[in-house]
Amino acid sequence: MHILLTNDDGYNAPGIQTLYRALRSQTNHDISIVAPDGQRSATGHSITLFQPLFLTEHKLDGQQKGYAISGTPSDCVKLAIQGGVVAKPDLIISGINLGPNLGTDIFYSGTVSAAMEGVLLGVPALAVSLASYEFMSFEPAATYLAEQLDFIVQHNHKGLMNINIPGKPQVEWRGVKVTRLGKAVYENVFERRVNPHGITYYWQCGNLAQDLESDTDLRAIQEDFISITPMHSDLTDFACIKSWQPIFDHNNG
Amino acid sequence: MHILLTNDDGYNAPGIQTLYRALRSQTNHDISIVAPDGQRSATGHSITLFQPLFLTEHKLDGQQKGYAISGTPSDCVKLAIQGGVVAKPDLIISGINLGPNLGTDIFYSGTVSAAMEGVLLGVPALAVSLASYEFMSFEPAATYLAEQLDFIVQHNHKGLMNINIPGKPQVEWRGVKVTRLGKAVYENVFERRVNPHGITYYWQCGNLAQDLESDTDLRAIQEDFISITPMHSDLTDFACIKSWQPIFDHNNG
Repeated sequence: MHILLTNDDGYNAPGIQTLYRALRSQTNHDISIVAPDGQRSATGHSITLFQPLFLTEHKLDGQQKGYAISGTPSDCVKLAIQGGVVAKPDLIISGINLGPNLGTDIFYSGTVSAAMEGVLLGVPALAVSLASYEFMSFEPAATYLAEQLDFIVQHNHKGLMNINIPGKPQVEWRGVKVTRLGKAVYENVFERRVNPHGITYYWQCGNLAQDLESDTDLRAIQEDFISITPMHSDLTDFACIKSWQPIFDHNNG
Repeated sequence: MHILLTNDDGYNAPGIQTLYRALRSQTNHDISIVAPDGQRSATGHSITLFQPLFLTEHKLDGQQKGYAISGTPSDCVKLAIQGGVVAKPDLIISGINLGPNLGTDIFYSGTVSAAMEGVLLGVPALAVSLASYEFMSFEPAATYLAEQLDFIVQHNHKGLMNINIPGKPQVEWRGVKVTRLGKAVYENVFERRVNPHGITYYWQCGNLAQDLESDTDLRAIQEDFISITPMHSDLTDFACIKSWQPIFDHNNG
């Protein structure tokens, strides 16, 4: 299997590099890395149309190839596949991200969006996140993923699987839960400040409120479970279409 | 009704300004504008966490308030509502965008993402696009929207309605179709060049292939219909959850 690794924390981030080493040492898959040349967190599914994209090749062991790109995570996946920078992969793994990607926050996530871009281009994908900004060791999550990879891929739906791993020592993980995306609600989202010139500005931040629904990804991580959420790529509200057609369709002769 | 206008083409873009004038002259609604201070096309649902956000107030007629923001379309909606820059709106209209926002391309769209951000914050939203880069007159689309607004809002599902209007004179519009999101497939997506210093770089571009499915937004616009697509905000693949639970859930004691 040829696996393309990408992320939104940048080519040299420890999450993707630790994952690369775990996959190389624990599996026999071919691995390419095509990742942004720096931090691109919260860039969502943005792509670069008005600037050119530059590549920097990095040496990896054996036949593996690595490229850092001057664009977004979705640019990386598009350029890798549609630009022919590497052979078409059988699987994309985006991550391991530093910090959770849960619930409605996935819309802002470069990590999840890169995986989604893979699915749009016909390649199954995993988005993998370490759900903490404090527990900085990626080894347990990377080792777990490398061990479970064949099992996960065998049962994937050829779509996107969003995996969040508790940001705690593995001994504290309580198991795996298949979840739905929850609703990420924040409090105190903007902090208003005035600069030395008297100009008002805002920092976006906010505290995540607890998710009280029992079957969500947010709740699973709050309770120290690995969360696996199957995702699709169609935001059409099909339930509405039939009821709307008699209301809105007209003059269609 | 208090309507918040935003877009991804920037505060001064003709699409949003023409829409503002049409709504002011044809309806009695209160209007605020909170839009990016410049071009933010293809920024998807990205948000700004690592830079502060600055506001520039613009004069509008009467009691209306306008702000240009140094961030993305989603930042604008979040700051407007969660930052309390304007009173909570009853409706968000994002647009009128210059160019189509159809099918899977909506993932890249700042216009649609701003509307989606509204829905995530509990405000129904319309994303409105003029589906051409050549026919630059926004008046027919803005007039149509102002005329139909009460009817559209009355039947909206309190979610996101993605509206694309043919980029042609109104006499050539063939009617309205309620559609699903199609699959936007591009050919020749990257153009490879070498700069005067011998460095390879890529421009992202591509030609949109024709959509042959009859019930999609892409097809409706190809056939000169106004396309209205109801959208939801949950990318969970619910069909997978039940089949995955016996496979992946374990050690949950």
